[in-house]
Amino acid sequence: HKRNHHSVGIIGAPFWKGQRRDGVEKGPDLIRDAGLVDKLKGQGCLVRDYGNLKFGDVPDDESFGKVQRPRAVGRANKQLADTVHTIKNDGHTCVMLGGDHSMAIGSILGHAASKKDLCVVWVDAHADINTPLTTPTGNIHGQPMSYLIKELHSKIPAIPGFSWIKPCISAQDIVYIGLRDVDPEEHYILKYLGIKSFSMTEVDHLGITRVMEETCDHIFSKVKRPIHLSYDIDALDPSVSPATGTPVVGGLTYREGIYITEQICQTGLLSALDMVEVNPKLGRTEAEVSSTVNTAVDLVLSCFGRVRGGSHAPDYCMPQP
Amino acid sequence: HKRNHHSVGIIGAPFWKGQRRDGVEKGPDLIRDAGLVDKLKGQGCLVRDYGNLKFGDVPDDESFGKVQRPRAVGRANKQLADTVHTIKNDGHTCVMLGGDHSMAIGSILGHAASKKDLCVVWVDAHADINTPLTTPTGNIHGQPMSYLIKELHSKIPAIPGFSWIKPCISAQDIVYIGLRDVDPEEHYILKYLGIKSFSMTEVDHLGITRVMEETCDHIFSKVKRPIHLSYDIDALDPSVSPATGTPVVGGLTYREGIYITEQICQTGLLSALDMVEVNPKLGRTEAEVSSTVNTAVDLVLSCFGRVRGGSHAPDYCMPQP
Amino acid sequence: HKRNHHSVGIIGAPFWKGQRRDGVEKGPDLIRDAGLVDKLKGQGCLVRDYGNLKFGDVPDDESFGKVQRPRAVGRANKQLADTVHTIKNDGHTCVMLGGDHSMAIGSILGHAASKKDLCVVWVDAHADINTPLTTPTGNIHGQPMSYLIKELHSKIPAIPGFSWIKPCISAQDIVYIGLRDVDPEEHYILKYLGIKSFSMTEVDHLGITRVMEETCDHIFSKVKRPIHLSYDIDALDPSVSPATGTPVVGGLTYREGIYITEQICQTGLLSALDMVEVNPKLGRTEAEVSSTVNTAVDLVLSCFGRVRGGSHAPDYCMPQP
Ligand SMILES: [Mn+2]
Ligand SMILES: [Mn+2]
Ligand SMILES: [Mn+2]
Ligand SMILES: [Mn+2]
Ligand SMILES: [Mn+2]
Ligand SMILES: [Mn+2]
Repeated sequence: HKRNHHSVGIIGAPFWKGQRRDGVEKGPDLIRDAGLVDKLKGQGCLVRDYGNLKFGDVPDDESFGKVQRPRAVGRANKQLADTVHTIKNDGHTCVMLGGDHSMAIGSILGHAASKKDLCVVWVDAHADINTPLTTPTGNIHGQPMSYLIKELHSKIPAIPGFSWIKPCISAQDIVYIGLRDVDPEEHYILKYLGIKSFSMTEVDHLGITRVMEETCDHIFSKVKRPIHLSYDIDALDPSVSPATGTPVVGGLTYREGIYITEQICQTGLLSALDMVEVNPKLGRTEAEVSSTVNTAVDLVLSCFGRVRGGSHAPDYCMPQP
Repeated sequence: HKRNHHSVGIIGAPFWKGQRRDGVEKGPDLIRDAGLVDKLKGQGCLVRDYGNLKFGDVPDDESFGKVQRPRAVGRANKQLADTVHTIKNDGHTCVMLGGDHSMAIGSILGHAASKKDLCVVWVDAHADINTPLTTPTGNIHGQPMSYLIKELHSKIPAIPGFSWIKPCISAQDIVYIGLRDVDPEEHYILKYLGIKSFSMTEVDHLGITRVMEETCDHIFSKVKRPIHLSYDIDALDPSVSPATGTPVVGGLTYREGIYITEQICQTGLLSALDMVEVNPKLGRTEAEVSSTVNTAVDLVLSCFGRVRGGSHAPDYCMPQP
Repeated sequence: HKRNHHSVGIIGAPFWKGQRRDGVEKGPDLIRDAGLVDKLKGQGCLVRDYGNLKFGDVPDDESFGKVQRPRAVGRANKQLADTVHTIKNDGHTCVMLGGDHSMAIGSILGHAASKKDLCVVWVDAHADINTPLTTPTGNIHGQPMSYLIKELHSKIPAIPGFSWIKPCISAQDIVYIGLRDVDPEEHYILKYLGIKSFSMTEVDHLGITRVMEETCDHIFSKVKRPIHLSYDIDALDPSVSPATGTPVVGGLTYREGIYITEQICQTGLLSALDMVEVNPKLGRTEAEVSSTVNTAVDLVLSCFGRVRGGSHAPDYCMPQP
């Protein structure tokens, strides 16, 4: 393995209002403090850190039906979408550090503004595809996909703060990996739209190697195109990444999680990455927090050329006695 | 995946005298307290709870050779066999919550009284096939299979309290999964009788997908028939289910354990289930107990239609704006 | 599975000066205290314990370039090489209990003195193939392979205490399993020499079954020959064997680790084994230490005929009533 030079643009989205657990807004800085930028540079990446978005208060943000804080979520995602668009226009692969998974709305919309033909690989214990009318919790981090899929457009009411949001992907442009906590209403949507998904049953049945082969077959069935990888840290098993808002037993191993990113990197088509739902306040010990944060860092590094078998610079010469 | 309506009859067998560790008699109520019945109903099952068996004292229960408390074990199993027979005649899939694994004697005999052609899938770290003459410990939870197999009949002496027990299965009707602590005498029996078994070496070698394919090939080689699934929680790794009497390192992962039950459910032929050897007194922390109990609940749920990729009711309609 | 009678010679090498973490010299006695000899005998092995080597002080052992304590490492390895040679000439499969992995130099050289055509299976998170000129740490436990490989001879300067060391294996005689922390300079050597290696990426991609099939295909491509298995306990995941000097996340599972030894045993060609880098002082709890030590014991047992599905003596007769 010889090294490739990735150009990476990082944007922090310290946003928590897509759900109710305090602490997920600390994700971006924790992931940076674990050395992300230096480690990326150390493996040959060019890195520009665009810093953290700042989200102002949104007054009078009453819920819309069950949907919580729609105006805050809409506005934050608009800021993020604009920044991601900029980062893509600057020529980088965009890394969005969350924050909760509601920020995938802005990340994917901003990405799509620059890359119309993108596809989405969504690695998560959850499908995050409830509509505003099916959501059992009202938390928008359980709904982002529903706003983005063209085939669901007629099922989505007008939400305050969401008027700028137009769906940008088709059901066939999506692959899910890691599902194991899917609401009945979400399952109906997945089946109704024929969305490709590898639940943990399929991961067990096929093995992660075939899951990634079939993932690539699906997204590249017609033509090679840019990948948006949206990685919820809760896709991994709680024994690996316990510090997250909605952990579910029976998740991906650390190795499977890394293998996914290695294979996505290998395609050469990773165009944007979300790394979301790291919540240090939900680690019961310092070890739980650091395991979660370090795993998030390792996943990002593997997206950008880190390989477990090692690598060396193309111009390396061995020292002689 | 559309839902199937399973009819489930639950019987608790809070029996511990097949071994020496206090606490395993608390299994049935702990598994219920973790919400088993409501969760089964929530996934569309019809459930009837037959409550817990009550086991009277058995005085003067001297050991027979090495065999401990034979009369108590014989009598409790007779009670269980009669109740399982009733539950099967009532038309349910029977779920026996143990208690220790000696109760598989009554569970399988009661089941066989109603379904003569049943086969047994035994998921366990142990083969539990010592005869009264080979047992190193005298604990009957390490012997139940020896009383049930026709080919071993001539090797079994008359045991006080066991006169009602007639072997009901043949060696070819059995599949073991998960073995990793097999006594030499047990190994001899397995080989001598040619019993199909997938030790952890075979699970590692073949993978759980092929293990389940070959399991179904074996038990359905001639004809489809009812399955008795006897699930010892110690089949799973102690990191998943530590609160059990005889944990052994190197066990099934949570995911493999669940995959087995999903595949058994898929056959449509599950006729009776034992879920045994949950012992809360052997958890060193509250987390160890709840992990063990919750895993037992998840295994039962997966036996009755729960799928990790989700499911929806056939008449579900999506809400429109 | 019928039992084979292995003849095992054990030599303890309580040496720590190939690295800087106190405690690894306690490995041999801890592994013995966990019952290694009796357990080997219990599974039918003939065992001779040659005790522990005693390493005198080496004064004025200044570093050579970055290389730390070269004279102590050289002298200890000479003692070990002579003893391993004796054990092989006595007709045993040699088990070297470390100590740090620098002792593989003496173990392999002593083995090669008796078996010229040996091959090496190196199970480790690390490649341990830095030369004295590339080592980033100066610790010789990260360099042993570089002194042993003929193709690297011209890259190795003369080191004080190492003059007796002549490379004895070729690059094509080596297979690595478990790599996940490889220095760029090491990666260059692996590629430059075309050394067969299964990093954790390949283990994930192929599965441990195919890894072992390909390992045997590689080492036996021309002719069957003696195997030197050099097993660094850090090949396993830190959740299994945390008490070691350089743990790396994402390692082999206990089951994969055992499967490797079972397959090596099956070849019938295991000729020498190193079990190294158990460091009890680095376990944070008693449970971490015992998990590491017990795993080391289980790995050795599986190298000498223990199978998880069980076994029985060929002359066993079943008791009749
Ligand atoms: Mn999630
Ligand atoms: Mn999510
Ligand atoms: Mn058991
Ligand atoms: Mn059992
Ligand atoms: Mn190592
Ligand atoms: Mn090593």
